[in-house]
Amino acid sequence: MDWTRISRAAALPVFEPGWVWLCGAGPGDPGLLTLHALNGLDQADVIVHDALVDRQILDLAKPGSEVIHAGKRGGKPSPKQHDISLRLIELASSGRRVLRLKGGDPFVFGRGGEEALALVRSGHPIRIIPGISAGIGGLAYAGIPVTHRDVNQSVTFVTGHDQSGDAPHALDWAAIADASPVIVLYMALKNIAGISSRLIDAGRAPDESVAVITAATTPDQRILETTLSQAALDIDAAGMTAPAVICIGRAVLFRQALDWLAAADGIPPRDLFPLGDQPFAEAS
Amino acid sequence: MDWTRISRAAALPVFEPGWVWLCGAGPGDPGLLTLHALNGLDQADVIVHDALVDRQILDLAKPGSEVIHAGKRGGKPSPKQHDISLRLIELASSGRRVLRLKGGDPFVFGRGGEEALALVRSGHPIRIIPGISAGIGGLAYAGIPVTHRDVNQSVTFVTGHDQSGDAPHALDWAAIADASPVIVLYMALKNIAGISSRLIDAGRAPDESVAVITAATTPDQRILETTLSQAALDIDAAGMTAPAVICIGRAVLFRQALDWLAAADGIPPRDLFPLGDQPFAEAS
Repeated sequence: MDWTRISRAAALPVFEPGWVWLCGAGPGDPGLLTLHALNGLDQADVIVHDALVDRQILDLAKPGSEVIHAGKRGGKPSPKQHDISLRLIELASSGRRVLRLKGGDPFVFGRGGEEALALVRSGHPIRIIPGISAGIGGLAYAGIPVTHRDVNQSVTFVTGHDQSGDAPHALDWAAIADASPVIVLYMALKNIAGISSRLIDAGRAPDESVAVITAATTPDQRILETTLSQAALDIDAAGMTAPAVICIGRAVLFRQALDWLAAADGIPPRDLFPLGDQPFAEAS
Repeated sequence: MDWTRISRAAALPVFEPGWVWLCGAGPGDPGLLTLHALNGLDQADVIVHDALVDRQILDLAKPGSEVIHAGKRGGKPSPKQHDISLRLIELASSGRRVLRLKGGDPFVFGRGGEEALALVRSGHPIRIIPGISAGIGGLAYAGIPVTHRDVNQSVTFVTGHDQSGDAPHALDWAAIADASPVIVLYMALKNIAGISSRLIDAGRAPDESVAVITAATTPDQRILETTLSQAALDIDAAGMTAPAVICIGRAVLFRQALDWLAAADGIPPRDLFPLGDQPFAEAS
């Protein structure tokens, strides 16, 4: 396989000076980078990245490119969003090719929309490069399909904290509880006790399955299986730390059959019929 | 850039005979393939793909690999899901490296979970390779951030039809209407009239913004901006056809500023403050 041929076949664009590419790096595994992301790393003069973007990914950057850490992480001092946007504008104004590399997808609780608006308002051309979001791809690495015909025809993604750091107040947790059999929480480790209580108050079963995945798709990936009522205690006892994605619902049960990373290590499936049912009706 | 170096740096795995890799190909643009997907195309003996996987992507396959079309498309005769699973089992049993390539992400309304279960139950080793889902990446190509701090702290993804082809009956549309300011519908072109009515009955504004995106991220991408009450009529009048993703909510308004594909063609933004507001509070 030859990169020049791939690049041509996939019609990968030329990175023009003064442009900013807002790019998702995926949840961690460098193999989940897109060709567009790699093409960006291959041409960027400067890369402005989050704390969540792995060293292994940055190592794919063009030799000689400048790498700037603009990490934001809950609880730690970090550049303000406004300062990051100003920095991007400044770098683009100097005529450089700026790759803004964010963990996951830039538009899924990633504040990419704010950066994009700031750049467009100041007249800088942008390109958006979507990335694999942990709420989908991170769950897949845990053997959890975020949708499955026998479980859910809808799924709701929720951020676990708002500007203040608290669980978002504007959310209608009762509606969320009823809207989707599967709920995926981002950045919710700190507020999981309150969120669980609200969902249980709204009628979700206290013993409903929950999976907590930290550092999804990386060698440090950890997975905790728990229940809605026990989640906060178990997370604390296990000492799990951000970044985390949390899945609530029967989808978690599929992990007993579909934990393909464990299977690759020789660990057999725990249960081939994790919903406790007969083989699926396979008429269609 | 050298593929061998990339492959090593990203620790891309060897595709062993008898394995099935269930892989998302993304929404269409070959540049949205992941490195894992490309690595699969580079090593697979046989590729079993959906109708939604583009020719340009299949052209990246290893010369000499067999390419099998197992497309399922609403309304057209197509292999039954059960038959596809059996075919995958048969191919893996013959000791081939099988790349099952699906449009979007295999676990987002893609029935990848069913195929994965069938394979695991019959003792075949699998790997799951997430892909960019149209509900996130397709919207991004239309300039629509699926989440934005000033619009939504939750988003709900819903499939627009169930086994029968109707809008899913099990869904609580009233709860969905209240759960998330932004709703993304997959495969909902045919049932949009009924879905819109239910959401309006549940309190969503008839004049709420809606974007309909067909063939997202491909050269054939079309985008229709409409409202909840007009969506069905406008889709019909525009003659839009599947595959489509539909976004409901104020997120659609950002397109007036963030339509980066149009901007790259020299079309200036329609409105730099699409929410009708002052510049965002940029304190954090």
